[in-house]
Amino acid sequence: MSDAPTLGGTRVSVADAMTETSAAVDAVLDRILPRPANAESRVLEAMRYATLAGGKRLRPFLVHASALLFDVPAQRSLRVGAAIEMVHSYSLIHDDLPAMDDDDLRRGQPSCHKKFDEATAILAGDALQALAFETLAHKDTHPDAEVRIELTRMLAVGAGAPGMVGGQMIDLAAEGTSPGIEVVSRMHAMKTGALITFSCEAGPVLGGAAKSARDALVAYSKDLGLAFQIADDLLDAEGNSEDIGKTAGKDAAQGKATFVSVLGLDRARVRAREHARAARERLAAFDGRADLLREVAQFVVDRRS
Amino acid sequence: MSDAPTLGGTRVSVADAMTETSAAVDAVLDRILPRPANAESRVLEAMRYATLAGGKRLRPFLVHASALLFDVPAQRSLRVGAAIEMVHSYSLIHDDLPAMDDDDLRRGQPSCHKKFDEATAILAGDALQALAFETLAHKDTHPDAEVRIELTRMLAVGAGAPGMVGGQMIDLAAEGTSPGIEVVSRMHAMKTGALITFSCEAGPVLGGAAKSARDALVAYSKDLGLAFQIADDLLDAEGNSEDIGKTAGKDAAQGKATFVSVLGLDRARVRAREHARAARERLAAFDGRADLLREVAQFVVDRRS
Repeated sequence: MSDAPTLGGTRVSVADAMTETSAAVDAVLDRILPRPANAESRVLEAMRYATLAGGKRLRPFLVHASALLFDVPAQRSLRVGAAIEMVHSYSLIHDDLPAMDDDDLRRGQPSCHKKFDEATAILAGDALQALAFETLAHKDTHPDAEVRIELTRMLAVGAGAPGMVGGQMIDLAAEGTSPGIEVVSRMHAMKTGALITFSCEAGPVLGGAAKSARDALVAYSKDLGLAFQIADDLLDAEGNSEDIGKTAGKDAAQGKATFVSVLGLDRARVRAREHARAARERLAAFDGRADLLREVAQFVVDRRS
Repeated sequence: MSDAPTLGGTRVSVADAMTETSAAVDAVLDRILPRPANAESRVLEAMRYATLAGGKRLRPFLVHASALLFDVPAQRSLRVGAAIEMVHSYSLIHDDLPAMDDDDLRRGQPSCHKKFDEATAILAGDALQALAFETLAHKDTHPDAEVRIELTRMLAVGAGAPGMVGGQMIDLAAEGTSPGIEVVSRMHAMKTGALITFSCEAGPVLGGAAKSARDALVAYSKDLGLAFQIADDLLDAEGNSEDIGKTAGKDAAQGKATFVSVLGLDRARVRAREHARAARERLAAFDGRADLLREVAQFVVDRRS
């Protein structure tokens, strides 16, 4: 991807745009992730294995698409996208561990601790989190230190106990219980929603946008996150392992609290579509450049993997 | 501790100064660490348990003592000290896991996964790392964003694959092998040295010191780190579990590569004292305010726990 926002001019489908961003962010990740060398090479291999194994790169795409609204150079948004993808990858490595969700399959391949070992997987996740912050702190991400430190703060809050980690704790604590919709909603808002919000908010922060624009993208991200997570729960309940690249049906088998378990399939489907529509409506103030974000809201509920 | 650098005027022993800093940093940690509440309270309890369980607080002391040379307000150095202690605590939680060093005892108490469970311990470590970066990013740490982002970059490098995590990987990979002094030195420079260097470098960075002063403190930290680690290996080989608050003799039992295993007890003792002396000599350009740093170099080799 060149520095010019190639997605801004001619009309492209969201699927094509995601594929293009995915390739571009993979190239950035490949440059940033250390090459295996020296006595510590095993953990470096594991970091690359877990991060470069594919995936939709939804979060980097959201960073890129939200940055596009404010004419942010692609080089900057792709670095932030690489950072959020490192955090996402680390969370998957740790979630898959035997002590956590105990999953042997991820993105259609052996999960990190199966390919390597548990100790290496724990360390690879730890190092990926650190590398995400190192990436944000680097001046190539943005020349203004105020912008970089604000992104750092946002990522730390979104990834930590107030966000992703806290949500994962609730998820584990709720296993075998029957929590209501409020607990399930809050759990998902923290576990997956916080990083989705980071991704959508990063664009206006990188672009020095007005508070109203930033607020609109945060509001968009909250509906998008809920639509995404309900769709994820539906895929686990209805999909097959080959399509989704991880073990299907695990939520029910593990007694997980999901939107499907509290709402049932039909109401969950309706709810996902409602959040997707609400997400689109949050973008009313933006012009045609926000079409990619509008379409991604539909994409997350229509996807089959 | 008041905002005035109380340690700068009258002469105090390093032990008293460490006790004072330890109490002050514990108060800051107590304020920053979230109170257990809501459905995620278990991970918040585990974060507090592992971080507020005592310990020498050597790293926060090094931040404080190095900051003192440049008239940095204690409020700022204590926040950086709290951040580095969170990273140190997270590393101990993960190191103690069954898949890693498998230790049931830490600071004389059940290690985090024994007190809680493995999943909670993994998550508590993950959240502590994020909270450390959140703490550095907050404007109370320093009004200048350039200073905060430089500290963030330094911590990310020191804690990640180029530093602590890489060193731990080498440590695990070397078990049962017979690595030479070069590998053991590099392993320790990364595993424990990198955070000790961060701590000593944080002072001049907070104080906007000249490059020569910063370089001197980095050089000091490298000798100090080696002195500290050799003393640690000696304590594991010679100490008893009650004194050191963790399981003694584990290095030999696990076939760990240590300075004692490659140098033998006598040469390791000599080497520790040599590094302590070299560390003191690195401070030649500083006045009496550096006496605390000079004394801590002796303290780390004389300690019995």
